[in-house]
Amino acid sequence: MKALVFDGQLKLVEDYPDPEPAPGEALVRVTVAGICNTDVEITRGYMDFRGIPGHEFVGVVAEAKDDRWLGKRVVGEINLPCGDCPTCAAGLPNHCPDRRVLGISGHPGAFAGFLTLPTANLHGVPEGIADDEAVFVEPLAAACQIVRQVEIGPQARVCVLGDGKLGLLVVQVLAPLAARTTLVGKSVDKMNRLDLPDLERVLADDLHVTRCFDVVVDCTGDPAGFATAMKVVRPRGTIVLKTTAAAAAPVNLAPLVVNEVTVVGSRCGPFDEAIRLLEERKLDVRPLVSARYPLDRALEAFDAAQHPDALKVLIDFNP
Amino acid sequence: MKALVFDGQLKLVEDYPDPEPAPGEALVRVTVAGICNTDVEITRGYMDFRGIPGHEFVGVVAEAKDDRWLGKRVVGEINLPCGDCPTCAAGLPNHCPDRRVLGISGHPGAFAGFLTLPTANLHGVPEGIADDEAVFVEPLAAACQIVRQVEIGPQARVCVLGDGKLGLLVVQVLAPLAARTTLVGKSVDKMNRLDLPDLERVLADDLHVTRCFDVVVDCTGDPAGFATAMKVVRPRGTIVLKTTAAAAAPVNLAPLVVNEVTVVGSRCGPFDEAIRLLEERKLDVRPLVSARYPLDRALEAFDAAQHPDALKVLIDFNP
Repeated sequence: MKALVFDGQLKLVEDYPDPEPAPGEALVRVTVAGICNTDVEITRGYMDFRGIPGHEFVGVVAEAKDDRWLGKRVVGEINLPCGDCPTCAAGLPNHCPDRRVLGISGHPGAFAGFLTLPTANLHGVPEGIADDEAVFVEPLAAACQIVRQVEIGPQARVCVLGDGKLGLLVVQVLAPLAARTTLVGKSVDKMNRLDLPDLERVLADDLHVTRCFDVVVDCTGDPAGFATAMKVVRPRGTIVLKTTAAAAAPVNLAPLVVNEVTVVGSRCGPFDEAIRLLEERKLDVRPLVSARYPLDRALEAFDAAQHPDALKVLIDFNP
Repeated sequence: MKALVFDGQLKLVEDYPDPEPAPGEALVRVTVAGICNTDVEITRGYMDFRGIPGHEFVGVVAEAKDDRWLGKRVVGEINLPCGDCPTCAAGLPNHCPDRRVLGISGHPGAFAGFLTLPTANLHGVPEGIADDEAVFVEPLAAACQIVRQVEIGPQARVCVLGDGKLGLLVVQVLAPLAARTTLVGKSVDKMNRLDLPDLERVLADDLHVTRCFDVVVDCTGDPAGFATAMKVVRPRGTIVLKTTAAAAAPVNLAPLVVNEVTVVGSRCGPFDEAIRLLEERKLDVRPLVSARYPLDRALEAFDAAQHPDALKVLIDFNP
């Protein structure tokens, strides 16, 4: 099969061997895949990953022991836990220390004709959700995870830092729950992609408030985002950290102590909830698609994804 | 009065003017005061404080409009909120942006014959508590604050990083609540001051475990403590930050996200709870006293407090 491979350099390989499903796994023909910042970070050394990156996808099941999956349109959870350690036994399989992660750690990913995943990881995609929407289920689930971890009450003043792909998803998930939501970004164009009349949009350079938000979500993808979050969160407020950057940055954590702030690291989330939001048209992910490339032009797609103006860049396997 | 004054340099002043109680304030004759790391940091420039430092004290009320306080032995909460801003109105006076703090910010402190504090800040000291114990109420309350912020269940595995004054108080507060408590320190002697037979004591250099504690409290006073905390906390576990260091240190926060760790900044705490613990003899703070000096030798006392072997150094006004 054709595959995008990172072996220290990102390259397109024409005749990469098809993956063999392990017991319990299905073989999935990829239809559309999305480029995430984590994929870009991988090309900068994050996780020391080698192989096929990519973990946002929608595809069709080509092989599965359980017939019911055959031919089904699916998305898939990306963590492959060992299933047999104390962390798994404690009900935290997504945190299994021996887990593999689709396209991120120890398991080949979605930027290829086929991928494999345990059928337990698969979720069928309801008819009403287009491929271009379904490919957002994984990052949208990550946005939904915030609501599982932090209470967003009807009085809450919420600030989302970052008008990238994840930030725009997080805003759409949180704004309906909060009293007031502020999006801080660098691009008026990106911020205006969202059809949320009550959303306050502030350019990062114009952000002069301090200590006023109950919940601040850092989706900047930039270590500097955390310092901004510490400035704008209120005493006893909560910062949700969504940013995983490869680089360490100098941070003075004293404001967390002085202001008794809580920081919550937040990663993968509930696929069923994300699918429900899409199916019920509670939000619209399509304005977040900024470009689409065939797999043959995946290197270009990666370049495009790193452009400051880019939002979600898709790789389309049926162009 | 005699007072220890910091004006860029720490010096003993023989004829410093007695403080005048403002409306609502009592005048307190200081009996014993304790030197905290924050006092040492102040002599290094922390908070740009100028004046009389010191915020851990026990004393006797010499003047108060409300007669009932006169002659009473008291300790005192250190935050002086404005009482008239949205933060105060929201029930967070300790986080008032205009607050003054005894001996730390805008209000003269306890290393002097007399101090003033609002009577609302005062707590009577029950007879059974000696002055040398009462002087620990403020830092012990800070240790008790952890229990208000984080649930320590009977199954909890707790790790306290740092065998300094605060670490040894925190261990004594948390160990009775947890299933297992581990103290990580640099000094066998300090760790052995605690009479807790079930406490696991580990030298920092011998700490090789990872991802195993439900709650990790960083009392190291060292920015490097946070990296250690990130290593030893379990996925979805909690790090309590007690360390306020003046310096920024390079930190990669990605492990917080990947392991969905919660970080809780924790500062001042409930005086009533600390007084109750001392009165009911639930713990023993006296082994933490490592030296005692009269005010005349307060400069020596500051030197002694900075020695690596030192724990609590007291300044005794009735030597």
